Amino acid sequence: MDEPGFTRLARCRVVIVGLGLMGGSLALALRAAKAGREIWGVDSDPAALAFAVEQSIIDCAADFDSVLNCEFLILAAPVRAILSQLHRLTSVIRHAKRPSVTLLDLGSTKSKIVAAMEKLPPGFDPVGGHPMCGKEVSGIENAEANLFRDKTFVLTPTKRASSAALALAQELIAAIGARPLILSPERHDALAAMSSHLPYVMAAALMRAAQTVDDDQLWTLAASGFRDTSRLAASDLTMMVDILLTNRAAILDALGRYRTELDWFITLIEAADPEALSAALAPAQRKRAELFRG
Amino acid sequence: MDEPGFTRLARCRVVIVGLGLMGGSLALALRAAKAGREIWGVDSDPAALAFAVEQSIIDCAADFDSVLNCEFLILAAPVRAILSQLHRLTSVIRHAKRPSVTLLDLGSTKSKIVAAMEKLPPGFDPVGGHPMCGKEVSGIENAEANLFRDKTFVLTPTKRASSAALALAQELIAAIGARPLILSPERHDALAAMSSHLPYVMAAALMRAAQTVDDDQLWTLAASGFRDTSRLAASDLTMMVDILLTNRAAILDALGRYRTELDWFITLIEAADPEALSAALAPAQRKRAELFRG
Repeated sequence: MDEPGFTRLARCRVVIVGLGLMGGSLALALRAAKAGREIWGVDSDPAALAFAVEQSIIDCAADFDSVLNCEFLILAAPVRAILSQLHRLTSVIRHAKRPSVTLLDLGSTKSKIVAAMEKLPPGFDPVGGHPMCGKEVSGIENAEANLFRDKTFVLTPTKRASSAALALAQELIAAIGARPLILSPERHDALAAMSSHLPYVMAAALMRAAQTVDDDQLWTLAASGFRDTSRLAASDLTMMVDILLTNRAAILDALGRYRTELDWFITLIEAADPEALSAALAPAQRKRAELFRG
Repeated sequence: MDEPGFTRLARCRVVIVGLGLMGGSLALALRAAKAGREIWGVDSDPAALAFAVEQSIIDCAADFDSVLNCEFLILAAPVRAILSQLHRLTSVIRHAKRPSVTLLDLGSTKSKIVAAMEKLPPGFDPVGGHPMCGKEVSGIENAEANLFRDKTFVLTPTKRASSAALALAQELIAAIGARPLILSPERHDALAAMSSHLPYVMAAALMRAAQTVDDDQLWTLAASGFRDTSRLAASDLTMMVDILLTNRAAILDALGRYRTELDWFITLIEAADPEALSAALAPAQRKRAELFRG
């Protein structure tokens, strides 16, 4: 019989594939919560692996072929790397005889990953996941145990996932101090396109537009407003290209909605009508002030 | 002979017209620096005036007709209010006999204000100014003495300004801990359009686009990226409408450059070419990372 607390997670060997900001922070958060019997790490970059071992972020550096030697496998790479890993798991499993492995990923887009998870051979119990947090710096050297604390952690279960797999994922979310939110992959991707992927494209387009201005004093004048609006442009390129490629339809929809509003503002500024401008800006101001106080 | 330090400013009665976030913060910063013999405040809102007197932010509440009874007059209202005040000064001066008043403003756009300053009757020694700082909250209750510290404070002198007026403005900038930068009004307005006014329009358009999504979980998923990219949408409406109306040409130019980049990203996302996307995003990432470390 299970003891109270995080008992099932406590008995798992957890293997984290991808020791970047997310994977490294997850390892640190699990350690801080004393969750997981052992934490193994896999990464194609020997420097990241060495750092993780030296800093005791993981118990053991493993290679991809040993990923099934665990109870809980977590894929924490950029989306297209996760898709390749899921493909590799299909061949690995052919040679393996073991009980079912609970599989979770931390990829930024979910529809393509969950579709690939559905096609895995038996022996996997897969759940999609996406912690809604990040920093504009990447790499395990920027990992921190508190990255997930009080953040939303979306779960997008596959149709084949057992209730035990979902419960284990929720146990992990509780252990790292995040808040679970269960959504369909399509709903996650539509919401993430508007709340995260569109703001990234906006920030990158702002940086490119600013670089067309031939006046170095521009950067002297760029104060906190510019700094905040452009922040996401510094995000990790591989991660962002993968997002743009694997959530195209939803991102193009969000960009279309945004461009309509932008063009409306251009029309209103051209017309120079203070009342019409004020009426268009007021709902944006009200909602922003309501959402984030201070 | 002047003593060392802020001696000329120290002997001035300073009148600040407009006790909002900027005017209130300026009064507090001058007080903290023991600059200004006396600080008088003028505001059409009796509550702001009463607050300023109660909190000892100013020495004396005055009305607009007494604004010439000083050595240093500072207009700290939204741009179109400053333009009205400059117009009023034209009639006030007809009835006054006094030595020259140094006039500085803190308005967010400079071309129209400096043009109006050039037309003032004799007796004014006017310099345009714009401290590059702010908060997304407004009002004197949010004023703080450190608002200007280490921030760029643009000066856009009129052609008629004496070197003494420019020196006094620079003395004020030193007293409040800001860094002076002298620019032409047109250059200021072009740079502010790209670095500040465009990011505001982007943030407002993002909030409006997000509000077209009929799913309340959007706000649960909106994490730090959305929060930062949308922050400027909460700015004071009157201030922002005045900016959009008095810097139209430069803002429309910045919006045009931005829209070109945005449309380019839409094309690249539609084409789904990872190398082309990466090549377009990389310069934005490099420059952002170079500009703001951490």
